[in-house]
Amino acid sequence: MPHPNDPTLRSFIDVDATSDFPIQNLPYGVFSSNGRASRVGVAIGDHVLDLCELEQAGRLDVGDPGVFARPTLNAFMALGPTVWSRTRARISELLRHDHPELRDNSELRARALLSMADVKLHLPFQVAGYTDFYSSKEHAANVGVMFRGKDNALQPNWLHMPIGYNGRASTVVVSGTKVRRPRGQLKPPGAEVPSFGPCKRLDFELEMGFVVGQPSKMGEMLTEKQAAEMIFGFMILNDWSARDIQQWEYVPLGPFQAKAFATSISPWIVTREALEPFRMHGPAQNPAPLPYLKQHLPNNYDMQLDVSLRAAGMNEAMRICRTNFKYMYWSSVQQLMHHASSGCAMNIGDILGSGTISGPDKNSRGSLLEISWNGTEPVELPGGAKRTFLEDGDSLVMRGWCQGDGYRVGFGEVEGTILPAE
Amino acid sequence: MPHPNDPTLRSFIDVDATSDFPIQNLPYGVFSSNGRASRVGVAIGDHVLDLCELEQAGRLDVGDPGVFARPTLNAFMALGPTVWSRTRARISELLRHDHPELRDNSELRARALLSMADVKLHLPFQVAGYTDFYSSKEHAANVGVMFRGKDNALQPNWLHMPIGYNGRASTVVVSGTKVRRPRGQLKPPGAEVPSFGPCKRLDFELEMGFVVGQPSKMGEMLTEKQAAEMIFGFMILNDWSARDIQQWEYVPLGPFQAKAFATSISPWIVTREALEPFRMHGPAQNPAPLPYLKQHLPNNYDMQLDVSLRAAGMNEAMRICRTNFKYMYWSSVQQLMHHASSGCAMNIGDILGSGTISGPDKNSRGSLLEISWNGTEPVELPGGAKRTFLEDGDSLVMRGWCQGDGYRVGFGEVEGTILPAE
Repeated sequence: MPHPNDPTLRSFIDVDATSDFPIQNLPYGVFSSNGRASRVGVAIGDHVLDLCELEQAGRLDVGDPGVFARPTLNAFMALGPTVWSRTRARISELLRHDHPELRDNSELRARALLSMADVKLHLPFQVAGYTDFYSSKEHAANVGVMFRGKDNALQPNWLHMPIGYNGRASTVVVSGTKVRRPRGQLKPPGAEVPSFGPCKRLDFELEMGFVVGQPSKMGEMLTEKQAAEMIFGFMILNDWSARDIQQWEYVPLGPFQAKAFATSISPWIVTREALEPFRMHGPAQNPAPLPYLKQHLPNNYDMQLDVSLRAAGMNEAMRICRTNFKYMYWSSVQQLMHHASSGCAMNIGDILGSGTISGPDKNSRGSLLEISWNGTEPVELPGGAKRTFLEDGDSLVMRGWCQGDGYRVGFGEVEGTILPAE
Repeated sequence: MPHPNDPTLRSFIDVDATSDFPIQNLPYGVFSSNGRASRVGVAIGDHVLDLCELEQAGRLDVGDPGVFARPTLNAFMALGPTVWSRTRARISELLRHDHPELRDNSELRARALLSMADVKLHLPFQVAGYTDFYSSKEHAANVGVMFRGKDNALQPNWLHMPIGYNGRASTVVVSGTKVRRPRGQLKPPGAEVPSFGPCKRLDFELEMGFVVGQPSKMGEMLTEKQAAEMIFGFMILNDWSARDIQQWEYVPLGPFQAKAFATSISPWIVTREALEPFRMHGPAQNPAPLPYLKQHLPNNYDMQLDVSLRAAGMNEAMRICRTNFKYMYWSSVQQLMHHASSGCAMNIGDILGSGTISGPDKNSRGSLLEISWNGTEPVELPGGAKRTFLEDGDSLVMRGWCQGDGYRVGFGEVEGTILPAE
C-alpha cells in the first residue's frame, strides 16, 4: 500500500491543486450538521468525511468503538501514535481514486461525505492547558528594539532556552468565533493614574500551535524522540493581545488579562505525519543549546503563512503579513522538552503556541505592534483607511500551508472579527 | 432547624475542641477505602462521612443521583450555591446529637462513618485552571526590598490591581504527594553561562487557594455578589518554587518552569459558607480601587496559618511561620473580579491562589526566601542543623484554622516531602 504522504496519490474526490486538503493531508476536526451531535471528521477537498459513519458501517476500526462519536479528539489522541498512523493510512486508502470500497458505495458516500459548506466546525479538542512561547528571534528582537533599544534587544536568557508562559485555556476558541474587545486597566504615557476601559491597542499575533496527544508523567523529562512522538498535530493560532493592558500589568509576573480574553485556533488539526515531507532544519543555534535541549533531527517546517485584514467597511481583505514557520529559532520539539524539563506533567489536549512568527523582512512581521512599529507607521488600507491597531468590526484571517509538488498540505484559516466592548 | 454555622451545635460524634472538623465545618473531600472507587465524603472529627452511602440509603437527595459516587467534586459544584447550602444543612442535621436518623441507625453508621485513619484522600476536584496571585503587600514588599531596595519595593501597578499569572494546573497534587526536586536552567551570580541541573534554592510559599464552583461566560464581567457566589470553598496551597530557576527565566514573561513542577493543596475543601462567621474587612486600600474592583462587604477572613519544617533526620517539626489570612491586601473576591474583567471565562474547578501570605512580623513570613532573607539569615533547627532553602528529605507542613468560641473551623494540613532530583 502506498504511504499516505505519497505525492502521486489521488482521491476519487476532485481536489484542486490549491486546496489545503488533498489526500496527502487528511486533517482531523470536529463538526456537526443537520442538528446531529458533534463528531469527528477528516477534511478532503471541499468535503468532510464523517468517521463516525465509516465506523458504524464497519469500514474503520481503531479498536475503540465510538471514539469518533465524541465531540472532541481527546479520546482518539489518547490511543497513541501507532493508531494515529494506522488510522490515517486506512482513511487514505478509503479515499484513493483506485480503491473501490467507498468510491463505489454510493449509499455510504451519501452518508459519510458531506459538503464542507453544510457543516459547522467546532473546537476540535478539549484544551487541557495552553502554554505560549516566544520563540521567533526576529519577533523578540523587534519588540526588544522598540522597547529597550538595539543594544539590549534580546534578553540575556533568550538564546539559552525557549522562553514561555502559561496562557489561559478557558478562552481558546475556534475560528469564526467573534472576539469582544477586552476591557482592562490602562495607564497611557503621561497618565498619573490608571483607568479601566476598553483596550485601545488591540493586536493579533500570528502563531502556530501544536496539540499534545500523549501525556508525560510528573517528574519526568523527555528525549527528543519522546517529545516528537507526543505531538499529535498542528494548527494556526491567533494569540489576540491587548498591548496597553499588557504594558501596565506585565511586570513582574508576565502577561495575564492582556492575553486572557481570547485565543483563536484553526479548526483542522494537521497531523505531524502529514507535515513530515516539509520538515527542515531551523536556523543555526548559537550558543549551542544545553544538552537537554539538543536536537539531532530537523524539527522545523517549511510552512508558508499569511495574514489578511478586512477592515470594518471594506469589501475585501488586504494581506498585511507573509512569513514562514521555518524561521522559528526554537522548534516545537525543543519547546516541549523544555516544558517537561522541570518535571512538569504534560496532558492530552495541551496546546503549545510557538510565539509570534516574524521573518527577516518588513512584510514578514507577525503582529500589528511590529507592522506599525508600535503605532508609528500606520498600515494604509485600500480606500484610504489606516490602522495601527485593530478597530471594532475588523476581521483578521490567518492562513498557512506547506507547498508540495502539485499539491498543498494546508490548515484552512483562522478568522476572528472584533466586537465592540459592551 | 438551627443554621449549620450555629456555634452551639454538637454532633453525636465526639469532636475535640481543637479538631479542625467540628459539625460547624463539614468540608468536602474525595476518598477511597477498602479497595472501593474514590467517592465524595465530608470530614467530621476523626471520621469521614461517606455521602455515597447516605445517598444510596435514601438519606441524602441533592437532585442528581450518583453525584457523590464520582471521583471529583466537579459535578457537585456544578449544582450551584443553593444546592451547596441545602446539602450542608442536611448533612449538619444528620450529624446533630439530637437528631436520631443516623445516630440511632447502627447499620447505616457502620457503613457511612469511616475512621479517617482508614481512608486515602485524593485530589478533591479536577483542576481546570490554576491562577496564582501575589496579593500580600507584606510579601510583595519583602521581595521588592530584597531585589530592588526599599524605595522601589512595590511595583507601580501593585496597589492598583491584584497582580497574578497563570500557573500550571497539571501538577496540582494533594497533600502527602512527594515532591521531586526540579531541574532547570541555573545561572548563579558570577556564572558566565547557564547550566542545567537540580534546583539549589527550593522554597515553599504559604498560600490559601479557592476553587471556582460556578462558571462565568467569556466576555462577561462579574459583580462583587456574582464573584462571591461562584466561590465553592477554600484550601491551603503550597506553591513550591525554585528560586534559582525563576531568577533566570522570569524576565519578561513571568514564572514558568520555576513553579510548574508541583503545587500541593489540602484535601478538604472548606466551604465559603462555613467560613462566614470569620469574615472581616481587610486592610484599608489606598488608593481606592477602581470601580470594577470595589467591594462593599468584608471579604477577608480571620484565619490562622502556620508552617512547620521537619528537616531530614529530625524527629519533630519546628514551626517556622505563623501568620493570618486576614493580612491579604486584595481579597479573593477582588481577585476573581479582576480575573474575569478582560472577558476571561472562569470554569468549574479553577483554582485561584492568594499568593504568599506574609504578615507584618519577622515570624509571619510565608516563604523561606523571606524567612532566610534571600539566604543570608539561615533558620536554626533543633540539633544544630540550618536551612536557607529546602534540602532533600525535608518535610513541610502547613496548617490553617479559624478560631470560634470553643471550636475551630480548620483545613487539616498540606504536607510535602522533598525527593532528590533523579
